[in-house]
Parts: sequence; structure tokens; C-alpha cells
Amino acid sequence: MCESHAYLVKSGVESRIMEDVISLTLDGDQIVMVSLLGEELRVPARIREIAFADHRIVLESADHA
Amino acid sequence: MCESHAYLVKSGVESRIMEDVISLTLDGDQIVMVSLLGEELRVPARIREIAFADHRIVLESADHA
Repeated sequence: MCESHAYLVKSGVESRIMEDVISLTLDGDQIVMVSLLGEELRVPARIREIAFADHRIVLESADHA
Repeated sequence: MCESHAYLVKSGVESRIMEDVISLTLDGDQIVMVSLLGEELRVPARIREIAFADHRIVLESADHA
């Protein structure tokens, strides 16, 4: 399986905000992620990096745009 | 391995633009992708969807923003 975990960087601190993300889309200024369990998470953020091999989605809080 | 393939939708037509993408970052209005072979591809586009389970990165050409 190739799900990734999502991390949010806010004020320089990185925290894991969702596990087993199966899809990521954009809705205006929001990142919308859906997990393997069917949970949906909307975050006002930007993509910093998606590292497929490392299974990492790194988002930056839009508060510091 | 969890590399994904990248597709670009332009004028309603989807074409594969890169295989085995290992990382995706943003640089201004450009999507920057690096492949397993070390190739770098820069595309003036937006992310439509990243489907991790399907190994698909779908981008929309910025020409139709």
C-alpha cells in the first residue's frame, strides 16, 4: 500500500495531522485529504513537498503565507 | 515502491508527462517533479488530484486557470 502520512508545519513546528492519506485535492485555499478510513480533513495550507518514496506529505500553514 | 505517474490535463486531454515521480514541490506557479531517474520536470500547472492508492498525480495546465 502506498498511503502517505500528512504533516503540517506551523510556526516552524511539524506535527502529524493525518495518517494513511489516499487522496489529496485542492479546494480554493484549502488542502482536502481523505484517509483510508474515509475521514476527510480540510486544512488552510499550501503544499511544501510530497515525497512519494518517503510517504510524506508536508504542508505549510497558510497563516504564514 | 510507491512512485506515481504524473498526468497533465490540457484542453480536456490527459497525457502522461512523467513516470516514477518520487517528489513533488511547488515553485511559484510551477509544479516541480523529480523522477526516480533523477530527471526534473517543471510544469506551469495546478494540482487537480493526487491519488496515492492509484499512483496518479493529475495536474491541470495553468493555461486554463
